[in-house]
Amino acid sequence: MADRPIKELDWKTPLEAAHKPSLDKIAKTGICGIIDLISPGVPPGSDTATLALLGYDALKVYSGRGALEAIGSDVEVMSGDVAFRCNFATVNENLVVLDRRAGRIANEDATKLAQSLRQIKLQKPYAFLFKNTIQHRAVLIIRGPKLSTAVCDSDPEKTEVKIFEIKPLEHSPEAKRTARILKELMNEFRKVLKEHPVNKERIRRKLLPANIILCRGAGTVPDITSLSEIYGINAACVAAASLIRGVCKAAGVKLINVKGATGTPQTDLTAKAKATVQALKANDFVVLHVKATDVASHDGNIKQKVELIEKIDKMLGYILNNVDLSSIYLAATADHTTSCLTRNHEGDPVPVAITGPYVCRDNVEEFGERACAKGGLNRIRGMDLMPILMNLIGKTNKFGA
Amino acid sequence: MADRPIKELDWKTPLEAAHKPSLDKIAKTGICGIIDLISPGVPPGSDTATLALLGYDALKVYSGRGALEAIGSDVEVMSGDVAFRCNFATVNENLVVLDRRAGRIANEDATKLAQSLRQIKLQKPYAFLFKNTIQHRAVLIIRGPKLSTAVCDSDPEKTEVKIFEIKPLEHSPEAKRTARILKELMNEFRKVLKEHPVNKERIRRKLLPANIILCRGAGTVPDITSLSEIYGINAACVAAASLIRGVCKAAGVKLINVKGATGTPQTDLTAKAKATVQALKANDFVVLHVKATDVASHDGNIKQKVELIEKIDKMLGYILNNVDLSSIYLAATADHTTSCLTRNHEGDPVPVAITGPYVCRDNVEEFGERACAKGGLNRIRGMDLMPILMNLIGKTNKFGA
Repeated sequence: MADRPIKELDWKTPLEAAHKPSLDKIAKTGICGIIDLISPGVPPGSDTATLALLGYDALKVYSGRGALEAIGSDVEVMSGDVAFRCNFATVNENLVVLDRRAGRIANEDATKLAQSLRQIKLQKPYAFLFKNTIQHRAVLIIRGPKLSTAVCDSDPEKTEVKIFEIKPLEHSPEAKRTARILKELMNEFRKVLKEHPVNKERIRRKLLPANIILCRGAGTVPDITSLSEIYGINAACVAAASLIRGVCKAAGVKLINVKGATGTPQTDLTAKAKATVQALKANDFVVLHVKATDVASHDGNIKQKVELIEKIDKMLGYILNNVDLSSIYLAATADHTTSCLTRNHEGDPVPVAITGPYVCRDNVEEFGERACAKGGLNRIRGMDLMPILMNLIGKTNKFGA
Repeated sequence: MADRPIKELDWKTPLEAAHKPSLDKIAKTGICGIIDLISPGVPPGSDTATLALLGYDALKVYSGRGALEAIGSDVEVMSGDVAFRCNFATVNENLVVLDRRAGRIANEDATKLAQSLRQIKLQKPYAFLFKNTIQHRAVLIIRGPKLSTAVCDSDPEKTEVKIFEIKPLEHSPEAKRTARILKELMNEFRKVLKEHPVNKERIRRKLLPANIILCRGAGTVPDITSLSEIYGINAACVAAASLIRGVCKAAGVKLINVKGATGTPQTDLTAKAKATVQALKANDFVVLHVKATDVASHDGNIKQKVELIEKIDKMLGYILNNVDLSSIYLAATADHTTSCLTRNHEGDPVPVAITGPYVCRDNVEEFGERACAKGGLNRIRGMDLMPILMNLIGKTNKFGA
């Protein structure tokens, strides 16, 4: 949601340019501030940022994106597994990346391709699991004895460059073994995808073929204490993006499935709002996450981003009208800044506003990157938000006596 | 540059009292804040503050001032060497300090005295290097097997007290050996200086004699990763003060020598401004440092400090007029507060302003300790500034995926 000033918006950010009465109401009736998800200037991944917003010290507990994404895709990740976040992507004959998302391939096509990829077999005792999630997104797990996360990504995370060769990142036999298995598997994937009828049909329909799998973020299951253990709360999550679901699940947060919630700009936000209001009846804490603005930012689509913020605002309007703000607290924030201009996550702080019965209301009248910087919360870190919220609802433990 | 409110300035700080249109322009067109170099209330040395401003965690990497100062004076410091920052100073017969800077002795006199000191020999296998830098400043290196930095300073860092006796700070044979060698050397220095013709001539001219060498800040070469390795940037530094040059050199920053840049209040700031503009053509990042305001503050010279701030402002005016602010970012800050009243470094935060194409401009209209505290950056730490700047120019690495 957060961004930088954009010339086309008269040097406003998309958030500042959007019509967003509900977000503004949260700011106006609440206490505002800015958040460095990890620390000032450091661009966070969605994984580390979400860990931080749930109160964890990502610098200590982060163990790679792959496993979190897999857990969130209902893939069981076992101790010793090495998990990767994957993309269906498009490369040319020289393995130069043309599109990291194969034209944001539709779920149906990706599902057919994934079925074929699963026919490949690794040499025993090794095995793999491959599952597509939303659009171009997928997860891969390599399972077997003595594997390592010390292997480099094949995904260069930009276009017009060649994919990275998969190499071990250290001299251990585990890292060498994992790199060898992964490299061979990726070559097999490439062979199957290149000749696949789904891709031939895509080319015929002038769509980008998903002719390669790019992998990144080798990870293992993180060892984190659940929110219920830390704060003694029941927590639930309304999110479609696998990664966010994975982080929540790892934190012991119950996942709520919402029909129509897709993690895309076409997602059904009203359905998510209703599910959230419902979830609040049985839980102390509910995370509601919308991925769509990030998608628009990565695509550099300023207009769509503004429209999506306005759509999110309507979703919040429903929530504000259907919960009792004399007894609940509501915090609005972003998990990172994604610049429509650079199309990347940036290390700029994000705005936050918390409304509810006993917050020290400040003078901020608007929800935005600049307006919130003048708020009563000042500048905090991502991992500070959760203790602040838990403190407001009387769920923190005293340190000291 | 930063200071506290001063009665003689109508309770304004020197920065608030100065006419400084260019600094104000940076604040007005930029995003402002205040910086705790190390942490709130902790007075930083110029060494730890500069390490912090270059993005290092000084609490982790700092290994004493001596080696940094020596590196910046083009003295080669080897692993195992123990380096000291030294002052030519004036003491009375009872070794009570009358002036810690021997009347800010001129370079010519200090050079002659240093030549004589270098004739002294240590017992083999030990040797020393002694080099005067600017005015009263000098560096000393003791070289040989099994030395230690665990020796106390002889410099009491104030006047009207006796110099400290050099003692080991721990019971190790290395510390005892280093203290013994240093103590003997300082006695030899004292003997040579006391009878030196340069000092006799200084007394005749009613100048303070440089009749002792005070040493402090025993240090070894710091083990830090270069800025180019961390951020993938080319960096250059325009500074005269040996310590700043040393920190920059240790960080892999190229030193640019500017004729007329002396590190004194008489320094040629226009020459430094021109060199900076030139350096920006070939580098991603340029550090421009001016020592003079700190000198005026240590001397308690309020009027000179205000005048120097106005001179620095003119220097910045040249830069603002000669760089393209639609493509570069410019940050103005101080490496510490030095109070004209206490004549010491203080732990008060310093103001900062960053201007450039995509900063979230705030409402601050003036560059000053109080005005910047209301800015959009709020309160950050010294080591946060560099990641914030590198993030603006797209040179930070994402944490997470």
